[in-house]
Amino acid sequence: MRTCNVAIVGATGLVGREIVEVLDQRQFPIGELRLFASQHSAGELIECGGRSVRVDPFDASALHGSEIVFVATPNSMGLDWVDQVTASGAIVIDTTQGFASDLDVPLIVPEVNPSDLGSYAARGIVASPDPTSIALAIVLHPLREMAGIRRLVVTSCEPVSGVGRGGIEELQQQTLDLMQGRSPEGAGSAFPQRIAFNLFPQVGSLAEGEASSGENVTIASVRRLIDQPDLPMSLTRVRVPLFFGQGLAIHVESDDALMTSAVVEILRAAPGVLLAETTDDEPYPTPASIIGEDAVALGRVRSDPETCAIDLWAAIDNVRKGAAVNAVQIAELLLRDHL
Amino acid sequence: MRTCNVAIVGATGLVGREIVEVLDQRQFPIGELRLFASQHSAGELIECGGRSVRVDPFDASALHGSEIVFVATPNSMGLDWVDQVTASGAIVIDTTQGFASDLDVPLIVPEVNPSDLGSYAARGIVASPDPTSIALAIVLHPLREMAGIRRLVVTSCEPVSGVGRGGIEELQQQTLDLMQGRSPEGAGSAFPQRIAFNLFPQVGSLAEGEASSGENVTIASVRRLIDQPDLPMSLTRVRVPLFFGQGLAIHVESDDALMTSAVVEILRAAPGVLLAETTDDEPYPTPASIIGEDAVALGRVRSDPETCAIDLWAAIDNVRKGAAVNAVQIAELLLRDHL
Repeated sequence: MRTCNVAIVGATGLVGREIVEVLDQRQFPIGELRLFASQHSAGELIECGGRSVRVDPFDASALHGSEIVFVATPNSMGLDWVDQVTASGAIVIDTTQGFASDLDVPLIVPEVNPSDLGSYAARGIVASPDPTSIALAIVLHPLREMAGIRRLVVTSCEPVSGVGRGGIEELQQQTLDLMQGRSPEGAGSAFPQRIAFNLFPQVGSLAEGEASSGENVTIASVRRLIDQPDLPMSLTRVRVPLFFGQGLAIHVESDDALMTSAVVEILRAAPGVLLAETTDDEPYPTPASIIGEDAVALGRVRSDPETCAIDLWAAIDNVRKGAAVNAVQIAELLLRDHL
Repeated sequence: MRTCNVAIVGATGLVGREIVEVLDQRQFPIGELRLFASQHSAGELIECGGRSVRVDPFDASALHGSEIVFVATPNSMGLDWVDQVTASGAIVIDTTQGFASDLDVPLIVPEVNPSDLGSYAARGIVASPDPTSIALAIVLHPLREMAGIRRLVVTSCEPVSGVGRGGIEELQQQTLDLMQGRSPEGAGSAFPQRIAFNLFPQVGSLAEGEASSGENVTIASVRRLIDQPDLPMSLTRVRVPLFFGQGLAIHVESDDALMTSAVVEILRAAPGVLLAETTDDEPYPTPASIIGEDAVALGRVRSDPETCAIDLWAAIDNVRKGAAVNAVQIAELLLRDHL
């Protein structure tokens, strides 16, 4: 069998570790496996499919010979480093949103726009979108094909793991402090406001009268993924005091009216979707119930044909399907069709 | 000065205690004060404006002589009891949503529709809406007057105190269990799903393909309050792991296009609104920052004149402005204009 030499940059982070696990679970045919992290985390041993791999400090020159390089660092890598990596012939799959708005780099959700992948060759880079964009694209793609989308209004409730391990530590510490009657000293370093037993409508930076930087990335990515560059879209990304898992309230105004039963039928057949059925114990997914799933889970589908409104609820494991699984699916497509 | 004999049924609950405090803070001219609760909580002493009042077990006949009776029990009282109370000449101000959909009972937010209060005389009852409806009505009323409202899409993130003290205990216990590495045994008794470090789109009961019972109450109340019985409105009420305070992402499609600066100007002048200014330390309110305020706090106002979309973020203290303050404001209006 054809194998593929793989490297992971940011291997000790939340998404990096999940990529290692997903590669193993999906039996990706790894040849050589190289793991990199910051100096701080180097030296650790990580298990993958029976082998034990030591994490090295990142060095672009050590990537020579790698065919696919996953980038899963907490912040995006500098452009110089990525250029060094691709110059050696490797294809970079970037999960950091550093290239989400670069139109020369394909932005891929395999269930939605696999045919766009071919354009990776121009730069040697494929971008894997943020979890909110992945969830929305998987839900909207089949609805768009059946009924057209005229307007989109979304509130996304996002866990602290969205900013990596620092977010998890901050929620833990503030929760402990408050449960023991100590007042946390205002905001910590990971978030602009107290997060324990609180929530706030800010992901990224804010400008007056505008979407936040995080909202802008997602709006641009969703428009690209479903190929509607002018789609009217209102999005509020809210940070909530959850560790993992994300919930989204999605409102779609469609061009054509659809009955609830028709929407349910479309979504039940859609790739990458787990639809909660009314016969299930839980009539809708929650961030806690979705952990570990490789699909976007949906529930509470309700449609008003008179006003062309479709409302539904979605949940996604932000680290898994929202990041690692999508990246590994991209690698699978590359290996099948392009390598 | 004219005084008014007041009774509070459900005086030891979260909203009942807050009504006592708000009456005192706003110097409501109380004559006699009678406090009632279930047998279980009776006997307690509650301070109000320098006097100490013993809580009696509820007995409709003991209400004789009371002019205004606040009802703040966790569930709505039976109709029989309310009829007994009003038969003795008292006016009931109900915060339990037992009469929210009864068109013979005025549903009042004093900043929005004070002139509807006169119709209280038919039944002797005034309904005070749920916190989500109060927040929305206060925001929408001035926007409707300036630009018209064509469609409304709202996600409301609601704390556990919305179901009373049982919700608070459940979040506390589950949080402690999880922080100590113990797994809570699925859902508790207050909520249908685990709430600690989780959230779920269910307030009230669910029916397939429809709004939840809690969503239906709010949709009907908002339509009544802003006098648009056919307003297309999509609402998702989400229970989140917060003790107090509520956050709402509000999307309005208006009839006329408004610039962001015009929306800001309208909202800055609106009664019952605290608008976060960009010069403030916090550019938007959070559920934690709004605690103790008697107004709805707004921030992140952004308008797209091209698509007639107005988006904003609101926070409300659900126990205070979302319940107790609104009820006391109704009593102030009754005393001023009708008693």
